[in-house]
Amino acid sequence: MAVYTEVSDDELDEFVAQYDIGAVVSCKGIAEGVENTNYLLQTDRDSFILTLYERRVNPAELPFFIGLMEHLAARGLACPSPIQGRDGAILRSLCGRPAALVSFLKGVWHRRISLNHCAELGPAMAEMHLKGADFPLTRRNNLSVEGWRGLFEAIRPRAGEIKEDLAERIAAELDFLEANWPKTLPVGLIHADLFPDNVFFLGDRLSGLIDFYFACTDFMAYDIAICLNAWCFEADGAFNATKARLMLNGYRRVRPLSAEELDALPLLARGAALRFLLTRSYDWLNTPAGAFVKRKDPMEYYRKLVFHQGVGGPGEYGIE
Amino acid sequence: MAVYTEVSDDELDEFVAQYDIGAVVSCKGIAEGVENTNYLLQTDRDSFILTLYERRVNPAELPFFIGLMEHLAARGLACPSPIQGRDGAILRSLCGRPAALVSFLKGVWHRRISLNHCAELGPAMAEMHLKGADFPLTRRNNLSVEGWRGLFEAIRPRAGEIKEDLAERIAAELDFLEANWPKTLPVGLIHADLFPDNVFFLGDRLSGLIDFYFACTDFMAYDIAICLNAWCFEADGAFNATKARLMLNGYRRVRPLSAEELDALPLLARGAALRFLLTRSYDWLNTPAGAFVKRKDPMEYYRKLVFHQGVGGPGEYGIE
Repeated sequence: MAVYTEVSDDELDEFVAQYDIGAVVSCKGIAEGVENTNYLLQTDRDSFILTLYERRVNPAELPFFIGLMEHLAARGLACPSPIQGRDGAILRSLCGRPAALVSFLKGVWHRRISLNHCAELGPAMAEMHLKGADFPLTRRNNLSVEGWRGLFEAIRPRAGEIKEDLAERIAAELDFLEANWPKTLPVGLIHADLFPDNVFFLGDRLSGLIDFYFACTDFMAYDIAICLNAWCFEADGAFNATKARLMLNGYRRVRPLSAEELDALPLLARGAALRFLLTRSYDWLNTPAGAFVKRKDPMEYYRKLVFHQGVGGPGEYGIE
Repeated sequence: MAVYTEVSDDELDEFVAQYDIGAVVSCKGIAEGVENTNYLLQTDRDSFILTLYERRVNPAELPFFIGLMEHLAARGLACPSPIQGRDGAILRSLCGRPAALVSFLKGVWHRRISLNHCAELGPAMAEMHLKGADFPLTRRNNLSVEGWRGLFEAIRPRAGEIKEDLAERIAAELDFLEANWPKTLPVGLIHADLFPDNVFFLGDRLSGLIDFYFACTDFMAYDIAICLNAWCFEADGAFNATKARLMLNGYRRVRPLSAEELDALPLLARGAALRFLLTRSYDWLNTPAGAFVKRKDPMEYYRKLVFHQGVGGPGEYGIE
C-alpha cells in the first residue's frame, strides 16, 4: 500500500523516451499493491501503469508473468497488456529495478461483494483458463501442497501467538492434504490470487483481471477453490452458497467442470484455505505491528478451513 | 505519502451520485501528500482529485482554503477548481471526514529543478498574488514570526539530538528576527508552501499550482523568501544565484517589488529558513524512525539559514 521507489523526472523522461506513447501529462504513485511500486502514467495519448518490481518478485520469473499477460491480452482477455518499447523490449530497468509498462485497465474493485460480482467472476475466470491453456511457458506453484510444509515449519515455533492450538490443527490438516491431494485433475494456467482487489468492474460488468504475479501452472479447479474462499464468505464468516453457485455455474457455462473436478472442490478449498492461513500467519508473525503494510488476519482463513472441513460434497457449494 | 482512509465502493457511489460528473471509470489512492488522503477519480467525462481531510487540517479552515481555490480558479489561475455538487455544495462528508472534489490538474512536479523551472515559477507566483489580492477572507499565518517561539519551546529540550548547539543558534536567531521582522510590507494572499511538489509542469511550461492548505494572509514577499529556499539551493547546499535571479526577475515582470520589499528579502529568507527548520525539527523529533512518513532533514534548513545570515543585501540573490 505504498510507493517504494521514487522515480525522478530525469529517470522517468529517459524511460518514457524509449516508448512511442506520447508526452507525459501526469504520473502519480498509486497507494495500492504491497508487492511492487506502481505509477499511473498519463500521456497525451493514453493511460498506463508503470510497475517497478520490488524484491518480493523474482526477476528470473518476470518473463513468465509478462509473457503471460501478452498471451492473454493478445487473445482478447481483458487484462493489462505489456507495452513494447521502440526496441521491441518490454522489460527494462528503472531506478535499479526491473520495470515494465502495461496498458491501463478501466474499472474499480469492490470491497463489498455482490451476487452479481460472483456471477461475473465465474465466466471471466473460465475464459482466462481457456485462453491460458496454450501458453507455452510453465511455472511451478510453490505455494501449493509441496510448499506448505516448509511454510508451516517456519511459523510453527510461534504459531501459538496466533491461536493456542494452531500448530496442531495445521499439522493434522497438512498430513491429511498431503495424503489426499489430487494428482490427475486438469492442469492449466491459473491466476492463483484472484481476490476482489484484482478484479475490476465498470458498473455491473466485470472489466478486467490484473496482477498476474502469482500466476502458475496448477489444477484449474484450484483457482476456483481460491475464489470460493475469497469471494463467497460474508464479513461475519458465513459461507454464502448463493454466491458460490452463481460463480460456479457461470464458470461452467464457459468451461465445463468434470465430475472429478467437482468432487475435488471441498478438498481443494481446504488446501486453498490452508495456503492463505499459512502465508498470512507468516506475514503476521514477521511484520512489526506499527508497520507500513497492514497485516491481514490469519484467523479469517482458519475459520474458512474449518468450514470446508465440514463440507460433505460439492453440493454444499450450491451446485445442483 | 499514503492513503489514510479507504473509501468503500458504497460510500464512493453515494458520494459521486451527488455530482453531475458522469460515471466512475477508476479510482486510485495516490501515494503523495502526507496531510490528506487523495484519490485520482476518473469518470467517463473527466478526471478529478477527491480529497479527504485528515486530522492535520482544521475543518473550520476548510471554507477558507476551498473558497480561495474557487476564487483563484475563477480568475484563471491554473489551480485545482473545487467542484460543486448538484446541491451547490462543495464541502461534504465521506467516511466520517470532510471531503471535497476538485478538478484534476495535468502536469508533473520536478525533483530536479532547472533554471527554466525557476524562471516559470516567478511569474506564476506573482500572478497568484495579484489574483488573490481581492479574496475577501483572511487567515493568520500561524507559522510566521509569532508562531516560532512556541514551536521552539516545543523542540528545545531535545534540539541537541539534532545538533549540539541547535537550541542556542535558534534562540539567537529568534531574538533577532522578533526584533527586526518587518511590519509594513505589502500584505496579500500567500501560498506559504510553494515547494516543487506543489508546482506542476507540462514539458517546459508551468501548468499549475496545487495544495493551498497552508495559504494565509501575510507579506507577499515572504512567499518569495520561502521559494528562494525551496527552489534556489542545489542538492550539495550551494545557493544558485542564477536560479534566484530568474525567479525574482520573472516575478517582478508581473508584480513589481518595492525597494522595501527587495531590501527585506534577506531577512524574510532567514525567517522562512527558520520556519522550516523549526517544523522539520519538530517532525524529526516526534516521528518514530521506521514510520510511515519519511522524515525530512531539518539540517538542510539550518544550512540555508546560515547562508542567509551571511547575505549582505538583495543583490546577492542575483538582483541587479
